[in-house]
Order: sequence, then structure tokens, then C-alpha cells
Amino acid sequence: MTETAEIMKVNPDIQKERDAATIDMEELAVIIYGKEQLSKKRKLEDAVFNDPDYKCVPSAFLSREEEYEEGLRKSSLAVLKQSKLSDLIEDHKDIMAYNSVLASFGYPSFGLHQTMFIPTLERQCTSEQREKFLPLCYDYRIIGTYAQTELGHGTFLRGLETTAHYDPNTQEFILNSPTISSIKWWPGALGKTSTHAVVLAQLYTLGKCHGIHPFVVQLRSLDDHKPLRGITVGDIGPKMGFGPNDNGYLKLHKHRIPRTNMLMKYSQVSPDGTYTKPPRSTLTYGTMTFVRVLIVHGSAIALAKASTIAIRYSAVRRQSELRPGEPEPQILSYPTQQHKLFPLLATAYAFHFVQLAMMKIYTDVNDQINNSNFSRIQELHALSSGLKAFTSWVTNAGLEVCRMSCGGHGYSQASGFPRLYADFTPSCTYEGENTVLMLQSARYLVKCVRDARSGKTLPGTVSYLSEDVSAVHSGGSSGRDLSNLDFLISLYKQRASNQVHFASDKVDRGISAGMDLVGALNSASVHLVSAAKAHSHYFIAKTFVESLKLLKASSELQNVLHQLASVYVFEGIAQSSGDFIEDYILSGSEAKTIRQLAVDLLPLIRVNAVSLVDAFSFRDEVLQSVLGRYDGNVYENLFKWAQNSPLNKTDVHPSYHKYLGPLLKRNQSKL
Amino acid sequence: MTETAEIMKVNPDIQKERDAATIDMEELAVIIYGKEQLSKKRKLEDAVFNDPDYKCVPSAFLSREEEYEEGLRKSSLAVLKQSKLSDLIEDHKDIMAYNSVLASFGYPSFGLHQTMFIPTLERQCTSEQREKFLPLCYDYRIIGTYAQTELGHGTFLRGLETTAHYDPNTQEFILNSPTISSIKWWPGALGKTSTHAVVLAQLYTLGKCHGIHPFVVQLRSLDDHKPLRGITVGDIGPKMGFGPNDNGYLKLHKHRIPRTNMLMKYSQVSPDGTYTKPPRSTLTYGTMTFVRVLIVHGSAIALAKASTIAIRYSAVRRQSELRPGEPEPQILSYPTQQHKLFPLLATAYAFHFVQLAMMKIYTDVNDQINNSNFSRIQELHALSSGLKAFTSWVTNAGLEVCRMSCGGHGYSQASGFPRLYADFTPSCTYEGENTVLMLQSARYLVKCVRDARSGKTLPGTVSYLSEDVSAVHSGGSSGRDLSNLDFLISLYKQRASNQVHFASDKVDRGISAGMDLVGALNSASVHLVSAAKAHSHYFIAKTFVESLKLLKASSELQNVLHQLASVYVFEGIAQSSGDFIEDYILSGSEAKTIRQLAVDLLPLIRVNAVSLVDAFSFRDEVLQSVLGRYDGNVYENLFKWAQNSPLNKTDVHPSYHKYLGPLLKRNQSKL
Repeated sequence: MTETAEIMKVNPDIQKERDAATIDMEELAVIIYGKEQLSKKRKLEDAVFNDPDYKCVPSAFLSREEEYEEGLRKSSLAVLKQSKLSDLIEDHKDIMAYNSVLASFGYPSFGLHQTMFIPTLERQCTSEQREKFLPLCYDYRIIGTYAQTELGHGTFLRGLETTAHYDPNTQEFILNSPTISSIKWWPGALGKTSTHAVVLAQLYTLGKCHGIHPFVVQLRSLDDHKPLRGITVGDIGPKMGFGPNDNGYLKLHKHRIPRTNMLMKYSQVSPDGTYTKPPRSTLTYGTMTFVRVLIVHGSAIALAKASTIAIRYSAVRRQSELRPGEPEPQILSYPTQQHKLFPLLATAYAFHFVQLAMMKIYTDVNDQINNSNFSRIQELHALSSGLKAFTSWVTNAGLEVCRMSCGGHGYSQASGFPRLYADFTPSCTYEGENTVLMLQSARYLVKCVRDARSGKTLPGTVSYLSEDVSAVHSGGSSGRDLSNLDFLISLYKQRASNQVHFASDKVDRGISAGMDLVGALNSASVHLVSAAKAHSHYFIAKTFVESLKLLKASSELQNVLHQLASVYVFEGIAQSSGDFIEDYILSGSEAKTIRQLAVDLLPLIRVNAVSLVDAFSFRDEVLQSVLGRYDGNVYENLFKWAQNSPLNKTDVHPSYHKYLGPLLKRNQSKL
Repeated sequence: MTETAEIMKVNPDIQKERDAATIDMEELAVIIYGKEQLSKKRKLEDAVFNDPDYKCVPSAFLSREEEYEEGLRKSSLAVLKQSKLSDLIEDHKDIMAYNSVLASFGYPSFGLHQTMFIPTLERQCTSEQREKFLPLCYDYRIIGTYAQTELGHGTFLRGLETTAHYDPNTQEFILNSPTISSIKWWPGALGKTSTHAVVLAQLYTLGKCHGIHPFVVQLRSLDDHKPLRGITVGDIGPKMGFGPNDNGYLKLHKHRIPRTNMLMKYSQVSPDGTYTKPPRSTLTYGTMTFVRVLIVHGSAIALAKASTIAIRYSAVRRQSELRPGEPEPQILSYPTQQHKLFPLLATAYAFHFVQLAMMKIYTDVNDQINNSNFSRIQELHALSSGLKAFTSWVTNAGLEVCRMSCGGHGYSQASGFPRLYADFTPSCTYEGENTVLMLQSARYLVKCVRDARSGKTLPGTVSYLSEDVSAVHSGGSSGRDLSNLDFLISLYKQRASNQVHFASDKVDRGISAGMDLVGALNSASVHLVSAAKAHSHYFIAKTFVESLKLLKASSELQNVLHQLASVYVFEGIAQSSGDFIEDYILSGSEAKTIRQLAVDLLPLIRVNAVSLVDAFSFRDEVLQSVLGRYDGNVYENLFKWAQNSPLNKTDVHPSYHKYLGPLLKRNQSKL
């Protein structure tokens, strides 16, 4: 590359890709976001990224304390800015959209205030409590978080140790952390920022424990922000990512709060201490399901970002030499690079359509619940649990494949990958640890098999478990069209059905051998996880293929999206071919054919690869990746970026005089 | 957990595990390290970790600048300390062992000086050059690094753009970075620390280019450490890990060095500019192979560390409730947790025996080379490339499985996992990007197939490619002992052979269809990578099983190590069952049986799991993990650790007064 080429506007290698694309990037962008939302998204991004108040140095150059402070600065600023953008921000959805643009700077300081504290109050306050607390929250006169997890207790809610004892004499609850393992641990913004928290604690009244209930606890003085008496609160220390967030701990020592600070919409403790239990225990867990649906969406976005960075960089990076004298090829042209990246690109599209479908199911079921129809709660819980775990696992691994496909530069913070990964990977753990969620999903599937046997009708997403799927593969392999996606989806269905029935039989055999249900489920748990994965995989592949059929798109775009769906479906089989062949769903040679079909598609997808990621419409400020720049001018900007490294403030680092100089000169007399 | 239990010496849950073990941990430790080396290792660790001069706060609490400075402090200290430990440090091996103890604190500042700069000089200097440079290096009067990679050029050495033009008038080389993409980028300790570098550059003399050659370039003044004229040098900025290391950039502008600074052992430029080429081009690349062997060792160690942390924590963590009223089980007792961790534990042991075998082959071949026998160079290169890529990929994924198996706490820097991963993952990229290495390995395997067809005898590790392996599976499945490891290893052999022949046939078909060899290899590259993976996998499984047969160990230890080898071999098949069934090496039901055999072994391995990781003998100071503490006292020490978070220096963070206070009080009049 010559010095002149370096100052050109767009790297010619990436421009060539865009010029050669057969699809209209903008048409696809509209399909992904919807016309109106895309326009809104772009306006909100302009409002944030063109505003000089939000400018700051890249977070990679900040110490953790600086990151925290900078996060607080931007989040406080955003509260003030929002009220002045009334032409752009019209409703709650717009606020969420604005906040998600801000999240490009790092997890916002008031994120849990907005997504957990306020929604919990909105759902679980009595009308008096709403009047008391919510105006303070909306106005940011108090800032809250949600304190559930403890040092020794995560997924298993009933194991929480924090106690709230009711004292009828003063009409107060006395909150306590009776052990080290009961210290609240992890809640975001708990350490230094929040003034209040919803604290989950074991409720004791009149000598009896009534299990976990939510309490509003003030943590810090509204005058000087100092922790109140009985409250020990602080930051849990640095993590793999989430630098700006003060995930915190909270130790309660005989801390008294008014009786009216227990959230009493569903359960109540009356002044004399009488307890009234909630009408339905599942009602209180709706937030969790919603957050899981959001994680499916988050997986789609993270994988789309990683694909964008890796594919753009692969278009401008040239490496190795096939034949002496020829120019080094773009690494995007290597089959091994395509085989890493294009199935992940296809997966990003798959997850996009799946999150839309999942959100629709969530909304439908919620509407039913509001009409007192609770019939699909379990199905919703099982589906959202399985999809949250499946998509976050696949994305987690996929982000690292994308990073490593960029060679050494992927390891630099300039690539954006390290932060993308560090901020995404908790998705596999929080809001339900993935393996635990897969087991919950599987237990529902096993229950469905039993229900089907006893003649019950199974709801939508699991109805196939009562079908006889053995018909699909009978009749030999002649005449089977292995490139027909509908046919292949029927094989995914068969695989899922087989795995669920296999795990279910295993549970039954355990019971026949004298185990109780719990023991039998536990001993079959490895197989149950496989079954829930196969179920989720089937749902995803099916949803992707079916969503494309409903799209209104130009025929060329339909054609290219069909290539993506094909590579997704083919590769899914190729990578788990054992599952399909072990049960004679496919023959060995058919599996080989499908593997080759995937490889054969790669050069076709390559034609539009850059446009397929451009359509995700991530601005450079959102990607925060020198490698993923829209203009492809990577090397000169890596060099520019590095100049800001704090170590480069001086030519000779001050520590030279303390350590290196004395060492080097120690034997100078010998020179 | 009660307050009294928390101050006990060893957590009773982990003590119970140790008490119930059937093997002798110390016997196993001696087998892993050797009696003498184990004792030496422990003494060196005492020397470092009991020395108060090395004490400092955990690196997670430091800013990057502080990390750099602290690394320099410890590394400078170590140079001085070593000379005073003459009773412990007797030879070069002891120095390396001492340095590897120091590496627990983070990558040492003078790591490349010791492992790349000095070895390169030792191998490629003439005797005059040795006399001139080496004493300065050994005495740390100069500190060097190895500058090869450029912004635009990594794996493909011939593509490097840096130039060294010889000027016969002054008898100097003029070094230049002609483009942005030619700037040297990534070399460790290049940014702020090194005074010198071996710079790889295209040599031009008498108007002709002679390709890449090494030059010693002084970067900084030995008086005041300022960069010399013509030298622009600095830090490339923060990375995913390696915080203390000042990976750097170097831009050369008409920088002149004496003719005698070209390393001339193999090639020479005479004063008048006449060039003499090296007798054998492969001789100059020996260092790379050695470093790849070290990475196989590094993979074994990293996976052993991660297993130690995850298994110890799983023994003390209790979570969920199987049956109401029963205590929450240790998570180590869950089959899903065992299924995540025990195959990885077994893999750590497999990689340990493989690195021993690999090192032995390296030493043997090197001895042959020193006796002018070059027959096994290619085999060594292919094997070390494949094993480097295979073991680092598996370890990379395995570290994250271990981290996530610890739930949320795995995400805290207190767990040690984030740093372990961030410092390990470059192993997949540096010293040859893994996919590129797999392709190099595969090209050799394809060549072997051709050699075998033309009647040549194949060397040791690839001789099976000339065997007729189809005999193994003929004769139906009756009487096949699926728990017999020798039999299963023969199936791995057959799978590897099939995959290599399949890829090789694919290349041949490409050539028949009119491609040149390069084009045919490129179009078959996805299959070539699979073939090289299968070859490496076979070597590892075989080496593990065969190494155990040669061990002198008590029968109970033999028994337990056999369980580990079994779970490794079983799971390898279970996870790639498609490979085995597609080619009729196994039937579908046999694959299912083997998968179940793996699951059935888990509770047996659980009995000794803690002792199996204890035997790796990592001190707490080496693991730097609150979760992996030997005493199992996790929660109280997480709490203690968090107190040191810089955000906790004051109860109210100073930034409150700048941002949060004004925001909260903005509407206070409304209160």
C-alpha cells in the first residue's frame, strides 16, 4: 500500500466488494429494522454521536475508575438531554432506543434502574406505593437497583439467606445478612451509585418463614450519599468486562425499614403481622422471561457486530501468496476463512428472525395472561429458556471465532472484539445459567411426552412431540432432495423428537429401576441437555426458513437470503452429523453430501458478504472497531489509535528512571 | 455457612474430597514432574513467593501504566535476585524454571530478550558477532526483542515490506519502513523497554533483493533511553490481555546501521556488497518449531490450571436443591457439571503426556540435524504445527467452559479466569495462525499419501497412512470390545487415515479437473483442515494411552489414570461421532454405547477429582484465583479481595459530587 492510497476516502478493496454486490443493501436494512424504525434509529444515532458533549477517549485507554466516572458523566448527561429531544423521543420505546444507542459507550450507569428497579416497582407496588416511589424514580431523585443474587446463591432462588423479620411493635422489617455467603453480590450499580434497591429476602412474620419477597431498601443518604447505618455497601472489584459498572455488594446488619416498604401488590403483611399469600406464584417471575427474550435479541446483535467487523476486515486484509508474483489475496477469498465466517453471518440472520418470532410469542402469551389464560406460561418459559441458552452459547463461541479470524489484530482493543466479548459473555450465565435453563426446558419437554401419551394436546412449539416422525426417513434414500430446506427441517424435527424421546425414556427407565423422579431426571441430565439443544435448534432452523417465505423482498434478495438459510441448515447438520446418522435420519453419504453443499455455497455468499453486513447498519461509533471501519482504512487508523495509548504520553516512560535505567547502567563500568 | 465455620482452616467440603480419594496425590505429582524437578520447582516457588520484595497488589486493581511499571520492577528485581540464588539456580534450565515461576505475575518484561533475542543471536551470529553482542545481552546492558510482524503482514514472511538497502560507500545498511503497512507491529517489549531489536527486513544489495534477513538495530540511546534518529517507536495500545507488556511499533526512516549488524552466520554481505546465500534455507526457522513445542506444553498447563480452579470451586459451591429439606448438593456432584469438567481434566493429562512425547521427538530430530541428517525436518514441522493448533484450540475453548462452569463468580477477576484466558488465547494466533498451521500440516500429509503410493517408506508418526486400515472394521460389530482403548485407538487411526485420503483425493480430483496444485489445495482447504485435526487427535489419543502403559505407578493410580484416558477417548468419539459413523468405522448404536460409557465413568472419576487437580501442584500464588484456593475458603476471601477495589477507597466516590449529586438534587425542590 502506498502513502497516497492511504489517504484515499474508501479502501478500494472494500469499495470493489460493494460495487460487485447483487443485492440492494438499503432494501435489506429496511427488512431488518422496518422503514420507520430504521429512520428513527439513524436520527437517534445522529443526536448522540453528533453531540460533542458525548465525545471522550476510547474506553480502552481509561483506568477502571475513569471508566466508572465517564459512565456516570454520560448517563447523567443523557437524563438531561432526553428531555430536550421531545421531537425525537415520543414514547417509552423511543427512550429505550435512545438508551440502546448510549449503550455503545458501555453499560449505562442507570441501566438496572430502568430495566429492573422501575419495572419491578411498576408490577409489584400497591397503588399507594406507586404514588410514593415511582415519581421519584422517573425524575431520578432516587436511583435503584435489584439485589437478588448472594455470594453463595445464584440460580436457586429459594436458597437465598437474607432475612426480613417483621417487628409488629414498630411496624418495621429488620433486614439481616446472617452469614458471609448471604451478602448480596453482583447487582449492577449497587456499589457506589444506587441510593435504593429492591432487596429479595426471606420474609419472617409471627415466627414463620414465608419465603422470598421483595423490599425497597434505601441504601444511601439523599443528602450526602453516605451509606445508612446498618448498610455496608461497596464495589465487588474488576471483572472480565463491564468496567464502568459498579456491580456491588450489600451487607445488612439489623437494618430497619417501614412495613410499607415491602412490595405488597401480591402478598401482604398487615400491621399486626398477618401474612396474606399471593394468588398465583408464577406471576412474580414475568420479568425474568422478558429479559431472556431480550438476550436472544442481544445474541443476534452481538453476532451481527462481530460478523461485520470480521467480514469488513477480511475484505481489506491481504495475506499470503497463492502463486509467486500474484498479489496476496484478500483473506475473504480463502475457503477456510469463508467457512469460519459465513455460517456465523447466517446464524446472525437466523437469530434475528428468531428474536422477532420469540418476541411475538411473548407478547401473545402475555396478552393471554392478562385475559387470565395461563395455558401457555410453561411453554413460553421452556422456549425462552432454551433459546436464551442456545443463542448465547452459539454467539459466545462465534464472537471468538470472528476475533481469531482477524489474526493478531483481533486481540488488540482497537479491534473492538475484546470488549464485545467481555460484555456479551455474561449472557451465558446471568438471568439463568445456561445449563440450568436447558434442564428446565428439557423437563418441560419430558412432561410433554407424558402428556401426549396420556392423550393431551400439546401447544404450538411442542406439538411435533406427539407426531409420528418415523415416516420421514422410511423408504430409503432415493429421491430425497438434500438441498430442499423444508425436507431438511423435517430432519431437524425428527432429530429433536428422537433426542427428547431418548432422554424421556432414560428418565422412565430410571424410575422403573427404583429412582424417584428427581433422581431419574438428575441421572439423565446430560441427555436432557442434548434434547433441549436439539429442540431449540429445530425451532431456530424452522423459524429462519419460514420467516423468509413471508418476506416481501426482491427476487435477488430472496435468493441471497435463501443462500444464508441454506448454509445455516446445512452446516447445522454437518456439525452434528452424528446425531442425524446414529438414528438413521441420514445415511453417512448423505451427511457428506450436505457438508459439501455448505462448502459449495461459500463462494456464492462471498459476492454479497460485505453488503450483508453493511445492512445491519452499525455506525462506526457503535462498532468501536478500527478493523470494522466502514471505509476499510484499517492500518493508518490502527497507527493513529495507538498514539493515544497512555504509555505513549512520553517518549521515555517515567518508570525507566526507577528500574530500567539503573539495571542497564549497573554494569556500565564494564563497557 | 455459619460465621464460625468461615474461619476454619480448610473448607470441610473440600477436605472431605481429599480424605475420600483413593489415590496418593504426591505419587501422581512425582509422576507428572519427576521427583527432582518437583522438589526444585517447590524450592524455586518458595524463593519467589516467600520473598517480600515480590509482593504487590493483584494486577486486576492496577491501571495499565501501573501494570507496566510493576512488571518492570519485578523483572529488574529478578535479574538481580537470580545471581544471589546460586545454590538453587545452577544452569540454564533452572533460570528458565525460575522465570516461569515469575511469569505467574504476568508476562515478564524481558521475556522476548530471553526467549527470542538471545537465542536468535546465539544461532545466527558469526563468532565475532557473538563476542560483540552476547556478553551485553547476558549482563542486561542491552535489552532486545524480535521485530518480525508488520501492520499489514503476519504469517506470510515473504510479504514483509521493511527494507535494508546496502550502501557500499559507507558500509552501512539503510533501514526503511516504506509504507504504513510495513510498520513493525506487535513485538513484545518493543514499545518502551527494549534498547535493541533483531529486525527482519528485505535485503537489497547491488540493486537486487535477496529476501528476508535479520539485522541487529539499536533503538534507543544507552545514555538516556531516547529513541535514536530515524527511529519512531511506541506502544501499540491496550490488548485483551498481556497488560504489563509494551507490545510495540517501529517505524524506520533511512536509519543507518553498520554492515556488521546483519546476522551473518548463514548469509553474508561482503564490504563491496557481494551477497552469499545460506547453504540451507530451513536452518533459520528452527526457533519457530521450538516455540510451537512450548505452546503444546503451555496448553497443558493452562488447561490444568483452569481444571484446578473449576474443580476445587465445584467442590465447595453448593447450589439448588434436589429434594426439599435436603442440603444443596456440591455442584461437583451434578452429572452436567462432571460432563463439562472431567473430559477437560482428562484432556489436561492427555496434553501433558503429549508435550513430553513432542519434546522428545523435537530433541531426537534436532540431534539428527546436528549430525546432518535432515530426513525428519518436515515430519517434525507438520507434527508440531498440528499439535500446536489442536491443543491451543481445545484449550482455548476449554478455559471458557471451566470459567462458565463457575457461574457468575467465574466472570470476576478474582476467579483468575479472565486473565488466564486473555493471556492464553494469543497462542491460537501467534507463532503461526492455527488454520494456517493446520493447512501446512495437511499439505505434508497429502504429500505422504503420494509418497506412499510411489512406494516410499513413511516416517514414524505418519507411517499409518500407508497401512490398509480398512481391515479394522470389516467383519461386523460382533465381538468388538468398545471399552478397549487399543481397539478404539485403531478407530481413531482409521478416521485419520480416511480423512487424509478423502482430502487427498479431493486435491487429485481438482488437478484432474485442470487446476494447478496450489488451486486444488486451496479449493480442498476446508477438508484439509479436518484431516490435519483428525491426524493430531489420533496422535494425542494414542500417545496418552501408550504413555500410561509405560508408567511405573501403583495399581490404584494406574486404574484412575486409565479412567481418565478412557473418558478422553470415549468423549473424543462422542463429540465427533459423525466422522466415525459416516465412514462405517462405527455403527450408530456403537457410537451411542461409547457416549454412554463416557457418562458412566463420570461418578468414578469424581471420587478422585480434587486429588487429580491437586497433583498439578499449583500454589495459590500461581493460580491467583480466589475460587481455586487450596483451602476452599472462597466466600470470605472474595469479600476480602473486593475491599481492595480502587472504587472502594472512599465510601462516597469523588465523582458523586461532579455528576450524581447534581442530578439527584436537581429536582429536590419538588420533594
